[in-house]
Amino acid sequence: MDLKDLFRSIKDLENKEVTVRGWIRNHRDQKTFGFIDFSDGTCGEHLQVVYDDTLKNFSEIQKMLVGCAIEVNGVIVKSSGNQDYEMKAVEIKVLGNCPEDYPIQPKRHTREFLREQAYLRPRTNLFQAVFRIRSVAASAIHEYFQSHNYVYVHTPLITTTDCEGSDQMFKLTTLDFNNLPMIDGKVDMTKDLFSKTSYITGSGQLHGEAFAMAFKKIYTFGPTFRTENSNTKTHANEFWMIEPEIAFCDLEELMNIEEEMLKYVVKTILDRCSGEIDFCDQFVEKGLKDKLTKLINSEFVRITHRDVVDILKKADVKWEFEPDYLEDIAKEHERYITEYFNGPVFITNWPKDIKAWYMKENSDGKTVAAVDLEVPGAGELMGGSQREEDYDTIIKRATSMGVDLAVVDWYLNLRKYGGCVHSGFGMGFERLIMYLTGVDNIRDVIPFPRTPGNCEY
Amino acid sequence: MDLKDLFRSIKDLENKEVTVRGWIRNHRDQKTFGFIDFSDGTCGEHLQVVYDDTLKNFSEIQKMLVGCAIEVNGVIVKSSGNQDYEMKAVEIKVLGNCPEDYPIQPKRHTREFLREQAYLRPRTNLFQAVFRIRSVAASAIHEYFQSHNYVYVHTPLITTTDCEGSDQMFKLTTLDFNNLPMIDGKVDMTKDLFSKTSYITGSGQLHGEAFAMAFKKIYTFGPTFRTENSNTKTHANEFWMIEPEIAFCDLEELMNIEEEMLKYVVKTILDRCSGEIDFCDQFVEKGLKDKLTKLINSEFVRITHRDVVDILKKADVKWEFEPDYLEDIAKEHERYITEYFNGPVFITNWPKDIKAWYMKENSDGKTVAAVDLEVPGAGELMGGSQREEDYDTIIKRATSMGVDLAVVDWYLNLRKYGGCVHSGFGMGFERLIMYLTGVDNIRDVIPFPRTPGNCEY
Repeated sequence: MDLKDLFRSIKDLENKEVTVRGWIRNHRDQKTFGFIDFSDGTCGEHLQVVYDDTLKNFSEIQKMLVGCAIEVNGVIVKSSGNQDYEMKAVEIKVLGNCPEDYPIQPKRHTREFLREQAYLRPRTNLFQAVFRIRSVAASAIHEYFQSHNYVYVHTPLITTTDCEGSDQMFKLTTLDFNNLPMIDGKVDMTKDLFSKTSYITGSGQLHGEAFAMAFKKIYTFGPTFRTENSNTKTHANEFWMIEPEIAFCDLEELMNIEEEMLKYVVKTILDRCSGEIDFCDQFVEKGLKDKLTKLINSEFVRITHRDVVDILKKADVKWEFEPDYLEDIAKEHERYITEYFNGPVFITNWPKDIKAWYMKENSDGKTVAAVDLEVPGAGELMGGSQREEDYDTIIKRATSMGVDLAVVDWYLNLRKYGGCVHSGFGMGFERLIMYLTGVDNIRDVIPFPRTPGNCEY
Repeated sequence: MDLKDLFRSIKDLENKEVTVRGWIRNHRDQKTFGFIDFSDGTCGEHLQVVYDDTLKNFSEIQKMLVGCAIEVNGVIVKSSGNQDYEMKAVEIKVLGNCPEDYPIQPKRHTREFLREQAYLRPRTNLFQAVFRIRSVAASAIHEYFQSHNYVYVHTPLITTTDCEGSDQMFKLTTLDFNNLPMIDGKVDMTKDLFSKTSYITGSGQLHGEAFAMAFKKIYTFGPTFRTENSNTKTHANEFWMIEPEIAFCDLEELMNIEEEMLKYVVKTILDRCSGEIDFCDQFVEKGLKDKLTKLINSEFVRITHRDVVDILKKADVKWEFEPDYLEDIAKEHERYITEYFNGPVFITNWPKDIKAWYMKENSDGKTVAAVDLEVPGAGELMGGSQREEDYDTIIKRATSMGVDLAVVDWYLNLRKYGGCVHSGFGMGFERLIMYLTGVDNIRDVIPFPRTPGNCEY
C-alpha cells in the first residue's frame, strides 16, 4: 500500500500486517538487528522498519544500501523510540539494487550539486517537499477555477501572434539549418511546416480573451517561453503560467478574484502539505508558516503607482534607482513597499507608456488600469489589467505602440462583436512555488529547469 | 450572477430579481414585446428573457442584434411556454454592440466555415459543449490522479532527449535564419541559447520515469508536438497528453489503472456535463450517451496481439492490409476488433520489433509487455508498457535499435540506482475528447488547432 494511505489510517493498522514498496533512505545495522528509514515518495513521512536476525535473509538485508528498492512485509507496531509507530519486518526483499557510489547519500548536499543531478534530486527531502507542494498547488488552482464556473482552455503553444512581442520568442522550425531553402537571397519560410515563421508562445492571453467572450470566465494553465538571455535566480526560459480572463469584470473585481484565488491556494497547501510546509519552515525559510497563515487572514493593500512612488520618495533610503512617477518600480522598491505594508500589495494605475498596448487607458489620459500584485519575499506574483474594450481606442493605442495590426486583426475584432469590459491576469507558477516554499532560486522549483546554456536531461 | 449558478438554484429564485450579463444568441421582437435567447457561456442552458413596451428603452432593445453583450435585470418567473422558467426583464442595457455582419448567426454553420472563424466558434452551441467537456475532462483527470496519491510533474517542453526520436520533433532556435553563425561550413549551434540544438518535446515519459523513481506514482499533463506532415482527421502538430508513470507496477496493474481512470473520467462527464452530452448525443453521435454509460459498467477485454491477429485472419473480411503476427494492426483492424467485442479492448504483448526500445521484453524473446487500449469509434486511446528495468538488457535493446546512449545516459542510470519494475502509459487528450463528444475531426476539439500549413490565429 502507499505510505500516504498507511499513515492516514495507521491507528487502524496497529498489529496488522501490510506490504509496502519503496526505497531505503537510510540504514543502520547492528549485530542482531537493524533499522531502515523507508520512504515510497507518496508522502513526506518516512516509515521506520525494524528487522532482526530471526529473518532468514538477515545477512543479505544487512548489506542493502541506501537507494535500494525494496518490498517490506511487516506488522505495524507502537514504537518504543521517538516515533509513534514503526514496522516490524516479517520479510524484506530487494526489488532493485543500488551501488555504493549512489550520488544521493543521506547527508546534506548543496543545491548546486543537486542541480547537476536533476534526475536524482527529487529523491531528497527538500525536493520531495517542493515538488509535492508544486503538484498540490496546481491541483488547488484547478479546483478554485473549476468551482467558480471557469472553463479551462488550452490556448495554443505554437503561434504566429503573441502579446509579448516576437523578439522575446523562440522560433520553431522543421527546416534543416544546414540546407535551408532560399528565395531571393533569403530563407524561404513558406517551405516550413506552417508555411511561415512560427514561434512558441510567451502568453495565452490574446487567445484566452477570445474564449472569455464566449464562456465569460476562462483560465489557462500551461507552459510559456522567453528567450531572455539572463542568468538570475528568478528567470527561466521555460515556465508555467496561469492566465484567467473574465468578461464583465473591471479592475476592482479582478483584484478580488486574485486575492480570493491566492488565499484558496495558500489555505489548501497549509491543509494538505502541512508536513512539507513544516520542513520548509525549518530548513528553507524561517517563519514561512506564519507568513502563509497571516496571508490568509489579511486584507491585501490596494494602492496606486503614484502613491507608491510618493512613499518611496519620502523613505529614508539611498536608492540605486530613483523612484519616478513615469517609470517602473525596481526590485529594491518592491521589497521596500511589501515590507512597509508587511504583506501583499496591489499596485494599480501604472504610467501608460511602460505598460502593454492592450491595457485600458484611464480617464486621466496618463495611466492604464493595470495592477501588479507584490508579495513579501517573491516580488511580483501576478500582473493583470482591464483590457481596452473600445475598438477605435485599441487601434489607436496599438498603432502608436508599433503593433502589426494585420497579425492581431482577429483579436481586435473581439471589440466589434459584442465586446465588453473585461480583465485578466497572469500568475507565474514558479514564482508562486517560490513564495509557498521559501526556495529562492527558480531552478530549484522546476523539475528540469531550462536557462541559457543549460538544457541538460 | 453566473447563469450556471442561476439554473442550479432557479426554484429558490422564483419571483426574485437578479442581474445577469452575457450575450444575445437569438432575438424575436414583436410589436409590444420580445424574446431574447440569452447565454453567458457558464453553462449550456440558455435563459429566455421576455421584455415588453413598459420598459423605457423598449425601442432601443428591439434593435439589439444577435451577438450583442447585454446586462439584464429581471425577475425569474414560471414560463407559460415550453420552458420551466424565464426572466421577465426590468431593465436591459447594452454593454457591447454587435453589427449585422456578425458571422455567427443563429443558424446551422458548417464546421469547415467555423474552423475559419476559430476565434468566434466557441460561441456556438456545438463548441460550447465540446470545450466545456474538454475543461471538465481535464479537471476529472487531475482529480483522479491527485486522489490516488499521484504527483503532477511538469516535465520539460524544451529538451535535447526524447523517447520519440528527433526526426519527429520541431527544432527551437533564437538564431536569425538569414544570418546564421557558421563554423567549418556548418551552422554553429553553440551560438544558440542553449549552446546546442534543442527541440520541443514529443513526450515527457523519460523525465516522468525519473520522478516515478522518487514519488512512486506520477503523471504529466501537458502539450506535446509532432512534425508529422499529415492532414488527417486524427492528426495535429500540437496536442495534449497525459502520461502517468508508476513504480512497482506491472502490465496487469497498469491496465487496471487505465480502466479505472477512464471510467472515472467518463462518469464525471456524464454527471457534470449531462446537458452537453445530451446535445452531442442528439446532434453529433447518435447513441453517444448509451456508449458512455455502457463503458462505465463494462469490463474491458484483455487479449494478446497474437490472438487479435487470429481473430482478424478468421474474419470474413477482405482486408486492405493483411493481418500479420509481426506487424502493427491497421485502422480497419482496430475498428473490427472493437466492434467484435463491442467495447474497449486492451491489446497486449506486441511484436518487439515494431515497438519502442524502452519496453520490457517478454520471456518469449519475441514480444514486449506493451498494451494499447482500443475504443469503439476513436481507435487507439492509450498506449502503454512495462518499462525495461534491467540495465544490461535495456542497453542491449537501445543499442540494437540505434539509440544514442550518450544522450540518454541519465535515463539508463535510473536502472542502476534502485530501479524497479515500473510501467506507464500515454493518453492523447484530444482522442479522449473525440471519444467523449463523438466529434470526428481533431481540429474541432482543439481551441486553435495547428496542422500542416495551418497556424492561423
